[in-house]
Amino acid sequence: MEFQNADIISVNQFDRPDLEKVFTLSDQMREIARGKIRNRLLDGKILANLFLEASTRSRMSFASAFSRLGGDVNSTTGMTFSSMAKGESLEDTISVIEQYCDVIAMRNPVTGSAQIAADVANVPVINAGDGIGEHPTQALLDAYTINAEKGRVDDLTITMTGDLKYGRTVHSLAKLMSNFDDIKFVFAAPDDFQMPDDIIEDLRAKGFDVMQTDDLDGNLPEADVVYSTRLQKERLSEADRGKDINSIFQITRAKVEQLCKKDVTIMHPLPRNDEVSTDVNPLPNAAYYRQAGYGMQVRMALYLLIFGKDGDLE
Amino acid sequence: MEFQNADIISVNQFDRPDLEKVFTLSDQMREIARGKIRNRLLDGKILANLFLEASTRSRMSFASAFSRLGGDVNSTTGMTFSSMAKGESLEDTISVIEQYCDVIAMRNPVTGSAQIAADVANVPVINAGDGIGEHPTQALLDAYTINAEKGRVDDLTITMTGDLKYGRTVHSLAKLMSNFDDIKFVFAAPDDFQMPDDIIEDLRAKGFDVMQTDDLDGNLPEADVVYSTRLQKERLSEADRGKDINSIFQITRAKVEQLCKKDVTIMHPLPRNDEVSTDVNPLPNAAYYRQAGYGMQVRMALYLLIFGKDGDLE
Amino acid sequence: MEFQNADIISVNQFDRPDLEKVFTLSDQMREIARGKIRNRLLDGKILANLFLEASTRSRMSFASAFSRLGGDVNSTTGMTFSSMAKGESLEDTISVIEQYCDVIAMRNPVTGSAQIAADVANVPVINAGDGIGEHPTQALLDAYTINAEKGRVDDLTITMTGDLKYGRTVHSLAKLMSNFDDIKFVFAAPDDFQMPDDIIEDLRAKGFDVMQTDDLDGNLPEADVVYSTRLQKERLSEADRGKDINSIFQITRAKVEQLCKKDVTIMHPLPRNDEVSTDVNPLPNAAYYRQAGYGMQVRMALYLLIFGKDGDLE
Repeated sequence: MEFQNADIISVNQFDRPDLEKVFTLSDQMREIARGKIRNRLLDGKILANLFLEASTRSRMSFASAFSRLGGDVNSTTGMTFSSMAKGESLEDTISVIEQYCDVIAMRNPVTGSAQIAADVANVPVINAGDGIGEHPTQALLDAYTINAEKGRVDDLTITMTGDLKYGRTVHSLAKLMSNFDDIKFVFAAPDDFQMPDDIIEDLRAKGFDVMQTDDLDGNLPEADVVYSTRLQKERLSEADRGKDINSIFQITRAKVEQLCKKDVTIMHPLPRNDEVSTDVNPLPNAAYYRQAGYGMQVRMALYLLIFGKDGDLE
Repeated sequence: MEFQNADIISVNQFDRPDLEKVFTLSDQMREIARGKIRNRLLDGKILANLFLEASTRSRMSFASAFSRLGGDVNSTTGMTFSSMAKGESLEDTISVIEQYCDVIAMRNPVTGSAQIAADVANVPVINAGDGIGEHPTQALLDAYTINAEKGRVDDLTITMTGDLKYGRTVHSLAKLMSNFDDIKFVFAAPDDFQMPDDIIEDLRAKGFDVMQTDDLDGNLPEADVVYSTRLQKERLSEADRGKDINSIFQITRAKVEQLCKKDVTIMHPLPRNDEVSTDVNPLPNAAYYRQAGYGMQVRMALYLLIFGKDGDLE
Repeated sequence: MEFQNADIISVNQFDRPDLEKVFTLSDQMREIARGKIRNRLLDGKILANLFLEASTRSRMSFASAFSRLGGDVNSTTGMTFSSMAKGESLEDTISVIEQYCDVIAMRNPVTGSAQIAADVANVPVINAGDGIGEHPTQALLDAYTINAEKGRVDDLTITMTGDLKYGRTVHSLAKLMSNFDDIKFVFAAPDDFQMPDDIIEDLRAKGFDVMQTDDLDGNLPEADVVYSTRLQKERLSEADRGKDINSIFQITRAKVEQLCKKDVTIMHPLPRNDEVSTDVNPLPNAAYYRQAGYGMQVRMALYLLIFGKDGDLE
């Protein structure tokens, strides 16, 4: 894809060279993201950080990533714009807001709203989540986390567990990873929460080894990466409610130490409840806090690419 | 007026030379407002952006305008301060807040509150709207839009339509325009929504040609500028509810192309409902989105004037 | 204490040399806090300003203090994080947020939460108030106000009045002042609102002259500093409700002019209701607005100390 002035709406925009470009640039962001090296490439630029739905941490990540590159941030929070409460269309809102900024990051509960905004705006629009639609920077940071922790995305076994049916993050990550080679996907979830058929079929059509199972523990030993997500128990079927779903699909320190490879990487998009127990936190395998830091790096990389500033790095 | 350290409370503070000064400086802000040229004249200054009433876009405009000049912004949102909820007076709130900033922009639903704040504060206060009182920077940006689009404010026919009775923006704009010469004012609205008598009388006393009418279409051909505002139908009289007020006072692409001058300028303070139909958007005559950008320039000009930095521009 | 990378959780962390270091550095912040001198020592640093409880002014003070030193601020407001609403622990929230910043200031209604955050975070945490727990920067700014107004904290008579029982600020200030010498503490309040016994005993054990009284006026003549706080009348006992508590414990201009030393310093943490009447405002003795400005200086001093930048001042 051509990154300069691009809208970032969907994971489908990215092919392997795009992802490698983002990963390489994200690597270069490491010390800048941590505040060790000062960078001012976005000095004078303004990010309109429009969060029409509560997501404190994503909002802070988009904002801090922009600040680390020297830009200014103009944030909104709250379920709606005051103008929208008066009946204004999203098109009008965006046409006004774009006068105040150089790039828009928008979280909006309405599926498809990011594309509508992008169609209207003359400045680039980054989809920061549009309902059950997409949240591409989350998928990019997940893929980058794998790359940063394992040194590659190819030739890995990834076990995804939890709510694979409704979980936007696992769908998007599976799609992004399908740009790489020799990956074995293990989807370990109760039947009612299994990965949708279209994603399974797409992965198989591309030649990937795909396993669907309700046995997590039996599949932990070969996992290079375990990606856990929250499973909303109120959605469980009658049959499964009788089972101890909690402990079956929970990642614990005991399981990591007794069942997993020594260098397994444990990921979670957070927030979590108890599907990854807190005794995993001190293990070097626990990558879920580092994920947040990688997310900063990925968003910084995207900003630089969108503004055509990636070539200006020293 | 003496701009340095001035409070900006009312359109009545501005005479023609003041307006021309603001317009000239706003012109110079054009490339800076768009992020093409970096300016740091307000480096180190802090704007306290106090919005005690929801107005997302005005708040963002005040903030981005300050950022474009290199300053820092400290914003509040929400209907009230937590301290005010405990019974604190506005005077105390302002006396504390001014310790944290160099200038205050305040939106407050209480009419007259801006003057109270200005009386108490040692830093300049900009009225960002005080209920049914004033919102002077909106009027300034409206007047500047006319100047930017037409190259002058003198010698024009402006047709204002919609809710001219309760609409704060049209009252203030009419007052500001009365500083210029040879303007014909056409006020096209249902009888119940006509411009208040005191404004009509004031304009006539100053020698302006003023027409009040409920016929919009018949008066479009001579208009250089059409300024449309929202008309709240629940306020219509019994008699008018029977009429198709919507289409009578709506600006459509067909009307612009068939009834108006080729270079007519269509303005609206936004948000709109359907009083300007969306098919007008692509026409070069549609100035309502550009208005938002002009608003940035005007607010930047005011900041520079208040801080006495207008002479420091390169 | 070792300031660099320190968490600021409690007033108990500070001994006399620590306080003198903070005071001296706060003095140096005076012109920078007022925007007279530009300082960029925190350029590139990010403050995560987490206010999980409404406190507009404290939030603005923490933010502006950081801006005055050239840093960037990433603020949250609202009663909770969206992730916490989904059941996330404070530990997880902090472990994510710290990836986005270099220092965290947190207001949280849960007592003890600041220490929990500090234990988890690798970046310094400043307690901006944790329920009925502590709010150490408020106490520091109160003590600094005394030092700035009187030139010393030693050898003074301070009269504290209002709600001394539940008032967090007076407890913390008394503790901090007990690091100095030859102070006479007069606690003037209704019996039901007197200072807790453990604080009285602690002050007496350290050799201070302590008086508890329900007679404010009779003790005003010897006061060098009067520290007034709000008294919630709904908490008054039956017996006291009959009395005119309002006027007994109110500070008025007449009392200041007729009963007090000419150079008495009147303080109040604000917001106030009528326990200090507004006719005191114009008197040079009224220090309560200046307190807010001193608060900026103290927070700036703490930021510089935490980042080890205090030695870099010119």
